[in-house]
Amino acid sequence: MKVTQRNRLHRLPARGSHESGVIHSILDAAFLAHVGFQAHGQPFVIPTLYGRDGNTLYLHGSVASRMLKELGGGIQACVAVTVVDGLVLARSAFHHSMNYRSVVAFGTARPITERDRKVHALRVISDHLIAGRWDDVRAPNDKELKGTAVLEFALDEASAKIRSGPPKDEPKDYARTVWAGVIPLVMEPRSAIPDERLADGTHEPQYELPWRNESAATPSLMPSSAESKSA
Amino acid sequence: MKVTQRNRLHRLPARGSHESGVIHSILDAAFLAHVGFQAHGQPFVIPTLYGRDGNTLYLHGSVASRMLKELGGGIQACVAVTVVDGLVLARSAFHHSMNYRSVVAFGTARPITERDRKVHALRVISDHLIAGRWDDVRAPNDKELKGTAVLEFALDEASAKIRSGPPKDEPKDYARTVWAGVIPLVMEPRSAIPDERLADGTHEPQYELPWRNESAATPSLMPSSAESKSA
Repeated sequence: MKVTQRNRLHRLPARGSHESGVIHSILDAAFLAHVGFQAHGQPFVIPTLYGRDGNTLYLHGSVASRMLKELGGGIQACVAVTVVDGLVLARSAFHHSMNYRSVVAFGTARPITERDRKVHALRVISDHLIAGRWDDVRAPNDKELKGTAVLEFALDEASAKIRSGPPKDEPKDYARTVWAGVIPLVMEPRSAIPDERLADGTHEPQYELPWRNESAATPSLMPSSAESKSA
Repeated sequence: MKVTQRNRLHRLPARGSHESGVIHSILDAAFLAHVGFQAHGQPFVIPTLYGRDGNTLYLHGSVASRMLKELGGGIQACVAVTVVDGLVLARSAFHHSMNYRSVVAFGTARPITERDRKVHALRVISDHLIAGRWDDVRAPNDKELKGTAVLEFALDEASAKIRSGPPKDEPKDYARTVWAGVIPLVMEPRSAIPDERLADGTHEPQYELPWRNESAATPSLMPSSAESKSA
């Protein structure tokens, strides 16, 4: 990953990385991005789903959405993805922190207009969220594809930040008898709620949620397996 | 909540609200915000913790942080908070969706410099995350307060969006025998991990995590109890 004025790490660079493998593994451990852009002199931040294919992020939405229209015009954008791994309880208020993995990427989104590439991108987003779901459902028809805007965003200028591990307290504070440690946090699925109008003979499938990777909760800045997905 | 050009709802206004009670209840059900701003011609989106006191959001960070420096200068900002409640599996790819509650707020952040107000704001952020923790730990000293920038952000121009409930499919697709429904998602704490250097005689407290409100997972656009916290 090239380091530019935009993705250079200012604060606590020891927590940061420009390695594509690290950046990709964090993006694969989440599914919600917050996309920032400036329009009419005002910054906007909009939450949206995404998928990753190699070094490209795909975003989608209604052709009527403000975000898709603005971004599709080729303006500068910033995509932030944050995985919260835990609350870090220190012995002083000041040293409380959060364990997290985050990616911030800068660049310009481009609309995808060719039918085949559009369908591919939508499938990547679907597979990112729920593996195998795409093959089970009705594919988008022409009208639906026309109503869906799809953007691609190259991960050329991005950086990752990771905080993990126990609290770091002031030497003097370790004598205090206040509890300190980490409360891990995990996004968990609950039992699925079937739609009331399921057709007779419908069975509940067991889908894998690829972003829900337990081992990803203890990442390193130099992962070995994180490169396994197309890098 | 006043409705302006910025917080007017464009897309699917039936999912949206400008009610302060709705906006506050969503902000109280999360602890991570994504803050957007423009600096040097480039949009930035940075994840950060926050607390809410009435109609004010508090943000904090190191005085050295880029975000705090830029925002403290009085530039326009956008604060987005998103709670993911579930994945919505429809019978067609097109109608897949997400159940969520989100707030987008526009405005200008102002630095808090008075000592007492700064400590109050930090306590609000702490209480928002882990009730009672503030009273158990060492309070910030003068040096730590000097190193911490605290901003206040008035919730004057904000909007909420909520999607809840089952998938909505095309009439023809209900005959399909593909499973449809909702996979609820919840941010869950796991067993706390004690720091290795706890002082003898330290016991693990049972803190309430106020944002982890189970009843909040089934919100309505017209909540009755959501107004109970100072509105």
